[in-house]
Amino acid sequence: MTYCLALQIDEGLVFAADSRTTAGVDFVSSYRKLFQFQPAADRFFVILTSGSLATSHELLDRLRRDLDAPPELTSLRSVNYLFEAAQYVGRELVAVQAAHATPLRESGADGKATLILGGQIAGRPPALYLIYPEGNYISATPETPFLQLGEFKYGKPVLSRIASGNLSLEDAARLALVSLDATMKSNLSVGPPLELAIYRRDTFNMSQHLILDEDSPLLRTVEKRWDDGMRQAFGRLPRFDWERGDRD
Amino acid sequence: MTYCLALQIDEGLVFAADSRTTAGVDFVSSYRKLFQFQPAADRFFVILTSGSLATSHELLDRLRRDLDAPPELTSLRSVNYLFEAAQYVGRELVAVQAAHATPLRESGADGKATLILGGQIAGRPPALYLIYPEGNYISATPETPFLQLGEFKYGKPVLSRIASGNLSLEDAARLALVSLDATMKSNLSVGPPLELAIYRRDTFNMSQHLILDEDSPLLRTVEKRWDDGMRQAFGRLPRFDWERGDRD
Repeated sequence: MTYCLALQIDEGLVFAADSRTTAGVDFVSSYRKLFQFQPAADRFFVILTSGSLATSHELLDRLRRDLDAPPELTSLRSVNYLFEAAQYVGRELVAVQAAHATPLRESGADGKATLILGGQIAGRPPALYLIYPEGNYISATPETPFLQLGEFKYGKPVLSRIASGNLSLEDAARLALVSLDATMKSNLSVGPPLELAIYRRDTFNMSQHLILDEDSPLLRTVEKRWDDGMRQAFGRLPRFDWERGDRD
Repeated sequence: MTYCLALQIDEGLVFAADSRTTAGVDFVSSYRKLFQFQPAADRFFVILTSGSLATSHELLDRLRRDLDAPPELTSLRSVNYLFEAAQYVGRELVAVQAAHATPLRESGADGKATLILGGQIAGRPPALYLIYPEGNYISATPETPFLQLGEFKYGKPVLSRIASGNLSLEDAARLALVSLDATMKSNLSVGPPLELAIYRRDTFNMSQHLILDEDSPLLRTVEKRWDDGMRQAFGRLPRFDWERGDRD
């Protein structure tokens, strides 16, 4: 399984992903799920992948190949709006899945992948899209400034509680780490190293890109402080009527 | 959907359930999902239900009817071990599902239900069982002192973090409320009123049984303090290398 998420805040975008890939419990390995594209100075894209690894690898190869195509053809270099990038990536995703559909179906697999595409094209604001295996998409909005892929439920409560457009980029990145931490603690198929990427609006470059392995001091401190904080919060919950003492 | 959970700690058992039932988004209603049985002075049982409401209602009727049967027949009154109660309830569950299987299948439904059974029979420790639609079961253990039904993922991280056998009954009850709160905030199909029940070992009676509606002052205080506590914990997370200031 996988857990990836992205936040869209006023200052820019934050992307985070685990790197565990499983094909059954006895083939567990690490693959990166966060890919950046910077095909021209006026644009920057990040793609997060979940689902079939084969589908997302072929998709990424097609997107890279298309960057060499003449500018009149659609590519991440030629699109004028970010939603056109989402449409284009969605079409390529459908095409990759269709190319292998029959033999996959005969093996009982479907080869589906789901993606998050985020980035910015100069003159327009940054944006985030979740692209479904069917090629259509939804975007992040001010009311729901985050999108998630894969094993999303464990890490959602803290996002619902804290995510908002006025967080700083660094706070949004910390929130992404806490959401990943909750997921890793609950589901073995989501695991480190974690990738964390920060895009500051109008820079057209990745501001920060961290790869945090299990022993990362930052990750350990985040885990420790979050755990301590949860326990303190728990200790401050109100007592029931029938309890004695001074804790409320 | 549903979210129910139960904790097994040294002092006894805690049960909690939401009460939202949906048959499609346009038929939302409230049904209790927590049922107690006290067929004799030496025994006490609680059943939590999830899945098909029709299946669990018929199951509960059968269990109640069997209490009137002669003592040589199996019932919650006649079993000698709690696991025998789990086996018996599992058999009845399979029988109810089988009785309606053909017409349900023709309607595209399966009528499956999953249960938690907890309680105590005098002379033996309290125990908790999760009974699958197939009639088999797993039990709570010292390493995993909680069992969950239904929409379990949102509320699991806090359980994994804090649940342990040496919590007080009241702390275990607060933990159950916090786990329910995380789930309700993330999934509209889980909703109040909440039921919360506390069983203190060797009492063979429910110690406390609360029904908390949306406006319950207790529930509102739990939500508020937990939210405040999470925000404080978030504020104490470590800063990244490139950030300035004194927050570490």
